[in-house]
Amino acid sequence: MKNIAIVNGPNLNLLGERETSIYGSMSFDDYFKTLQASFPDLNLSFAQSNVEGELVSLIQDLGRSNDGIVLNAAAYTHTSVAIADAIAAIKIPVIEVHISNIYAREEFRQTSLSAKNCVGLISGLGLQGYRHAINHFTDFS
Amino acid sequence: MKNIAIVNGPNLNLLGERETSIYGSMSFDDYFKTLQASFPDLNLSFAQSNVEGELVSLIQDLGRSNDGIVLNAAAYTHTSVAIADAIAAIKIPVIEVHISNIYAREEFRQTSLSAKNCVGLISGLGLQGYRHAINHFTDFS
Amino acid sequence: MKNIAIVNGPNLNLLGERETSIYGSMSFDDYFKTLQASFPDLNLSFAQSNVEGELVSLIQDLGRSNDGIVLNAAAYTHTSVAIADAIAAIKIPVIEVHISNIYAREEFRQTSLSAKNCVGLISGLGLQGYRHAINHFTDFS
Amino acid sequence: MKNIAIVNGPNLNLLGERETSIYGSMSFDDYFKTLQASFPDLNLSFAQSNVEGELVSLIQDLGRSNDGIVLNAAAYTHTSVAIADAIAAIKIPVIEVHISNIYAREEFRQTSLSAKNCVGLISGLGLQGYRHAINHFTDFS
Amino acid sequence: MKNIAIVNGPNLNLLGERETSIYGSMSFDDYFKTLQASFPDLNLSFAQSNVEGELVSLIQDLGRSNDGIVLNAAAYTHTSVAIADAIAAIKIPVIEVHISNIYAREEFRQTSLSAKNCVGLISGLGLQGYRHAINHFTDFS
Amino acid sequence: MKNIAIVNGPNLNLLGERETSIYGSMSFDDYFKTLQASFPDLNLSFAQSNVEGELVSLIQDLGRSNDGIVLNAAAYTHTSVAIADAIAAIKIPVIEVHISNIYAREEFRQTSLSAKNCVGLISGLGLQGYRHAINHFTDFS
Amino acid sequence: MKNIAIVNGPNLNLLGERETSIYGSMSFDDYFKTLQASFPDLNLSFAQSNVEGELVSLIQDLGRSNDGIVLNAAAYTHTSVAIADAIAAIKIPVIEVHISNIYAREEFRQTSLSAKNCVGLISGLGLQGYRHAINHFTDFS
Amino acid sequence: MKNIAIVNGPNLNLLGERETSIYGSMSFDDYFKTLQASFPDLNLSFAQSNVEGELVSLIQDLGRSNDGIVLNAAAYTHTSVAIADAIAAIKIPVIEVHISNIYAREEFRQTSLSAKNCVGLISGLGLQGYRHAINHFTDFS
Amino acid sequence: MKNIAIVNGPNLNLLGERETSIYGSMSFDDYFKTLQASFPDLNLSFAQSNVEGELVSLIQDLGRSNDGIVLNAAAYTHTSVAIADAIAAIKIPVIEVHISNIYAREEFRQTSLSAKNCVGLISGLGLQGYRHAINHFTDFS
Amino acid sequence: MKNIAIVNGPNLNLLGERETSIYGSMSFDDYFKTLQASFPDLNLSFAQSNVEGELVSLIQDLGRSNDGIVLNAAAYTHTSVAIADAIAAIKIPVIEVHISNIYAREEFRQTSLSAKNCVGLISGLGLQGYRHAINHFTDFS
Amino acid sequence: MKNIAIVNGPNLNLLGERETSIYGSMSFDDYFKTLQASFPDLNLSFAQSNVEGELVSLIQDLGRSNDGIVLNAAAYTHTSVAIADAIAAIKIPVIEVHISNIYAREEFRQTSLSAKNCVGLISGLGLQGYRHAINHFTDFS
Amino acid sequence: MKNIAIVNGPNLNLLGERETSIYGSMSFDDYFKTLQASFPDLNLSFAQSNVEGELVSLIQDLGRSNDGIVLNAAAYTHTSVAIADAIAAIKIPVIEVHISNIYAREEFRQTSLSAKNCVGLISGLGLQGYRHAINHFTDFS
Repeated sequence: MKNIAIVNGPNLNLLGERETSIYGSMSFDDYFKTLQASFPDLNLSFAQSNVEGELVSLIQDLGRSNDGIVLNAAAYTHTSVAIADAIAAIKIPVIEVHISNIYAREEFRQTSLSAKNCVGLISGLGLQGYRHAINHFTDFS
Repeated sequence: MKNIAIVNGPNLNLLGERETSIYGSMSFDDYFKTLQASFPDLNLSFAQSNVEGELVSLIQDLGRSNDGIVLNAAAYTHTSVAIADAIAAIKIPVIEVHISNIYAREEFRQTSLSAKNCVGLISGLGLQGYRHAINHFTDFS
Repeated sequence: MKNIAIVNGPNLNLLGERETSIYGSMSFDDYFKTLQASFPDLNLSFAQSNVEGELVSLIQDLGRSNDGIVLNAAAYTHTSVAIADAIAAIKIPVIEVHISNIYAREEFRQTSLSAKNCVGLISGLGLQGYRHAINHFTDFS
Repeated sequence: MKNIAIVNGPNLNLLGERETSIYGSMSFDDYFKTLQASFPDLNLSFAQSNVEGELVSLIQDLGRSNDGIVLNAAAYTHTSVAIADAIAAIKIPVIEVHISNIYAREEFRQTSLSAKNCVGLISGLGLQGYRHAINHFTDFS
Repeated sequence: MKNIAIVNGPNLNLLGERETSIYGSMSFDDYFKTLQASFPDLNLSFAQSNVEGELVSLIQDLGRSNDGIVLNAAAYTHTSVAIADAIAAIKIPVIEVHISNIYAREEFRQTSLSAKNCVGLISGLGLQGYRHAINHFTDFS
Repeated sequence: MKNIAIVNGPNLNLLGERETSIYGSMSFDDYFKTLQASFPDLNLSFAQSNVEGELVSLIQDLGRSNDGIVLNAAAYTHTSVAIADAIAAIKIPVIEVHISNIYAREEFRQTSLSAKNCVGLISGLGLQGYRHAINHFTDFS
Repeated sequence: MKNIAIVNGPNLNLLGERETSIYGSMSFDDYFKTLQASFPDLNLSFAQSNVEGELVSLIQDLGRSNDGIVLNAAAYTHTSVAIADAIAAIKIPVIEVHISNIYAREEFRQTSLSAKNCVGLISGLGLQGYRHAINHFTDFS
Repeated sequence: MKNIAIVNGPNLNLLGERETSIYGSMSFDDYFKTLQASFPDLNLSFAQSNVEGELVSLIQDLGRSNDGIVLNAAAYTHTSVAIADAIAAIKIPVIEVHISNIYAREEFRQTSLSAKNCVGLISGLGLQGYRHAINHFTDFS
Repeated sequence: MKNIAIVNGPNLNLLGERETSIYGSMSFDDYFKTLQASFPDLNLSFAQSNVEGELVSLIQDLGRSNDGIVLNAAAYTHTSVAIADAIAAIKIPVIEVHISNIYAREEFRQTSLSAKNCVGLISGLGLQGYRHAINHFTDFS
Repeated sequence: MKNIAIVNGPNLNLLGERETSIYGSMSFDDYFKTLQASFPDLNLSFAQSNVEGELVSLIQDLGRSNDGIVLNAAAYTHTSVAIADAIAAIKIPVIEVHISNIYAREEFRQTSLSAKNCVGLISGLGLQGYRHAINHFTDFS
Repeated sequence: MKNIAIVNGPNLNLLGERETSIYGSMSFDDYFKTLQASFPDLNLSFAQSNVEGELVSLIQDLGRSNDGIVLNAAAYTHTSVAIADAIAAIKIPVIEVHISNIYAREEFRQTSLSAKNCVGLISGLGLQGYRHAINHFTDFS
Repeated sequence: MKNIAIVNGPNLNLLGERETSIYGSMSFDDYFKTLQASFPDLNLSFAQSNVEGELVSLIQDLGRSNDGIVLNAAAYTHTSVAIADAIAAIKIPVIEVHISNIYAREEFRQTSLSAKNCVGLISGLGLQGYRHAINHFTDFS
């Protein structure tokens, strides 16, 4: 049974509550339940933090006990060398996910410091981007 | 029955033949057959051109008769305003796919002129990126 | 009787059909007929291509048999050194026309590689920019 | 009877006197008379100043009593946020005119701060650029 | 009795008349009367000019006869070294005020050449920014 | 009774102790008491953290229970997309305050990532900048 | 018998006709005959296209049946990622040739996207640059 | 008898009064008298303005009646295309003078837009820079 | 007896475990014991955190009770204004250490925001860089 | 009998000894003998210096007594305005040669300050680049 | 009797011989004699080198035995930190002279690394710039 | 017995004499004696040159007969590709030393072209930086 961890970064705890016209009205907790239902053969876990350094620690720890990480580092995607280093330091593959299309937003969101250390990136496909990433780990990795 | 078109840009006709350590040894024609087998309920089509302006024309034409386009504009991703304009001019959604992780390559490949006019982007997940994009059109759009 | 050629670039074949709130609902074919009616003493011709290199060839060829060219290279305006070189290579004057005001759009549209080799530029005056350019060739060149 | 105002910026008072190989030997006063003769049905006026702030005041004032302004802000085109703001503050359309082709000159002349607030821009068509702009107001606005 | 001078730059004479959805419908003259009523113990004065050099002269002159200047240089904030030099040349403190939030506008408005020579800056608090600045001079300087 | 929260960022816990020639010798705790005395009709609260992500959480939480936030994010002002996102995610107005004049300091301090999501900014008016911000919430919001 | 292909890019079909003071009055067809006469032991071929994508296809095709390519991509040298990718995709060596000295021309001509994938570059030695390149393939490769 | 005009720009009317540790305590009026005494055979004149456009007009006017201009455009040196254009428009030589060493000051003062249209530049030699410039006109031009 | 504190930043808790070909297989805990053995006359302490703000707090606290700090801020070296401010706020000297040669790595690692507030920097000398820094505090400060 | 001088810049005295996998194991002295043997009808000379100013002097001197110079300025290619000036100052043609392909190396090696003053440039063709350059002087200049 | 040294940089040994339309046909040796004749009360000396480091040594040495240096570092002006450091290291004043107007030449010549450490700069006044500099040392320093 | 060479660049011959408040009053010759006394088991040598190319030659020569080089290239650190190439060409390790903290000085001193080819860098630790570097060669290499 594969272990897949989802890690969400700053302000994603507000999903379903904030800017619902963009992000929809479903909280991530509720969405996570649909993911668990969809992948009964996977051991899915989920963690969120607003603190960059806690995300670094999470990635280090989860990197020891999982087969893959789905990471949405949100705002830290564009500024955190530390998270990028943490991804490089672990041995399991990471897929970067963004709910919105980062190329259709402000210029500073069109750069990712972490993506080069990830397997790949899914952006703009909404919450379903998480599902595609899990699918990828399930079928092909 | 949904119509989904795949459009490939320059040099992708060499898939399976060129730099096989990176891209694998399967040609896109063979891979396309596996896609057709996987999606019996979809009407999948596939076109490739090395010519930027032919890709513009393809996107215009396919935009009238399909429900979605999966586009890998390859090298033109980074230089073509004309293709970006064509995507903006049509009414159906486009998902941009890159086989390799563009963030782990040369800096000029880390910019996409067309992505902002697409629904989203999948990069670095290999040929399966096409499959995820088709899945997205099938399930959620 | 003067020969004046109009050359349109990528996606301008969609005029009247695409983004009609910006560009209006008249196709360029219909507009071209009004131009012919307005200038009975001129031999007006019209060509369009989505392919950069075909525009290069068109400019070379039309440059041998006309007294002036009205060029709207659209997206290639901002990226094509080849078209700029073709304008420099011919002996007749070229006026660059843009339907929309390129200075009020994205930053990458505010640069023209070809304008420096043209006589001048008309931007933002709608389809009538073509008429002003033809007027200029008629009266003053 | 429509009111159209022409506003000229710094050093344009020297037209016909300075660098005549580029600008010709006709003064703007003389040229203005030919314009008045050409447009007997229009109420044309003309003002010039070397002072940026006076041009701001002129645009504000003329914006209240005219149907359109033809503006050649000359050197201030490239440096004046204040003139750009004045154009944005008035309710009538402004067309920006440059006698020479700004794209064929020094790089700093290839940027216009004011153009984005104008209807459009005519550059490089000599003194006749003014005539085309007036024509545009007459026929189409 | 303290003397405090307010100096307004280009286009601010149109307050209450221009873009009222942003700036409100009160003219600065009317607002100035409310300021005078609020600060009966101060000798408040007010001047406006569209001309950069007149603002330089105003700052020089007012710098000799006041205890503080509240300056809204508007468009010249972003381009005028001369005004910045004038502020540095006088001996009394200057507070820079902007009615709108300059950080939420175009990028060129996010730079101030004069602010480094001022005591401080208040931006985005509407017309009341002037009141806060006067308060600051009254209570703390 | 209005609730106004003050949030201070990294190193501001050292106020009164560090670089006292610039920042004065009053601790923020002592200054906060003078604010409470000055605004007996307000429910003022105060929090400080050196951790970026804790500031994100603070802004999220305080945004649910206050009428306005006065934020001095200190060093994170210039680097934190996460704090800027948190401000955008809450529904109450935020005023950004800097004790020193950021325009008179190092160039990297002259940029604010968060200011565009705030109502406005007060910089360089010392500790009294907090008082002006509270005044603004009291009188005008 | 070695096969060497020469590939010329946009506007080079005008050699001998255009800007003859720079490029001389010999057409490339005529020059090609002198090359064939000079290298009787080589199987020389020659192709030209104004279309970027056709050059991509030419390089792909010629790369399968030749021992070396002499490429003058002209204007596309400075803008085409697709041609650079095509060179990287084939297995035979390519030498880049420019008739004029690209370092003595406009700044945008001083960059080559394709040169890094070629064996080397000869620039500024006129039409004889082609001859030196062929010599290099003959003697040393 | 040669006519030489000195033109001073913004804030130079404060010489002798402002920042005397840098600029000394002599006013320019007094210094001008010493210049007149030193050059009894020259017809020296002197003008100052804080207004960019008035400097443009001054240069135009003085350019008709003098043999040379000594120009210290002060802050406008770094920002005024209009003054640079005025220098280019007149037929007599202009020497640019700066009292302080512009290369030892802020970076934005190390650029001169006008110098390229002048004969030359003297910077950092104090008020005597004016004397050297006049000497140059006297002896060598 | 001098007190010297070592502070390590993000991901350095993985030393000896991660990328051992670069960093060696010794953990920092083990290395720290060799340092303690080498400097019996010093009171050495050691702390690590992945959280930027905790490093700020550590530096503030350690700055009150030590004679010197050896800081390896790792990834935060390149992005943290807050840590740089903390170093400036304390009164004891800090030496910045990097295990690898930051000039031989990615370009973004070649910038240090904190180094300008430190006494100096040792980079590329492996774990022994810590020893050299302690030596420096012992012998010379 | 034509005189052709070869001038080599810094570190090229180590050819055959340094990084032989890139540059081969032949010293330039030995290679020079093969050149002399190949061109019995030429008077070839050869000089090398590590000192920029000595290269300037060499170019000046050799420029008086030769018919052409083959210059490999090595590292100074990218930094020396003085060598570029020396080439401009002499009357004979210079061809710039680089053994390796400068476009396939670090970005700072892709710029040549001297090339614009040379006839042309040969890069990446190994030691044989010298031979091609001499051939060019022999046959065509 | 004052000692004044003139130091000339690379390629200035060719004065009178090279590009005489720009620099005139007088050698510096001859011009130096006219300077000696003009200043019988000064002990003038003159040195030239093409080698950057020799200029550094010259400035160090001459700085010990002279009252002032007139320096024309030619090409090294724009690239040499070492010469700028040497000027900063000596105690006597240096005036930088350029024969041509560096602002009217290539952009890379419009920057001076050394000027900020000099007293001032004279540019564009031909060989007489040296005379003005000596005059300045004589009369005012 | 190990051989370690120290190489100093331009202006370092003035140590002890120039800017003594920064660099102290000890000459490098005197300091070198203290180094020799401290390391009786090493064969230390020392060389200095103001000439970039002589430093290149020194590094080449010393690279053949030593076990390590301690290099302070001073001003050439920031501009010399040739010295960086020389370091890459030799087989022994080089440690770069700067007496002052280059990160606390002008921006152009914060870049090192040579550091990436060195083992590491020590900056800001005064003359003792040389001692630390020698220690490193002694103990660990």
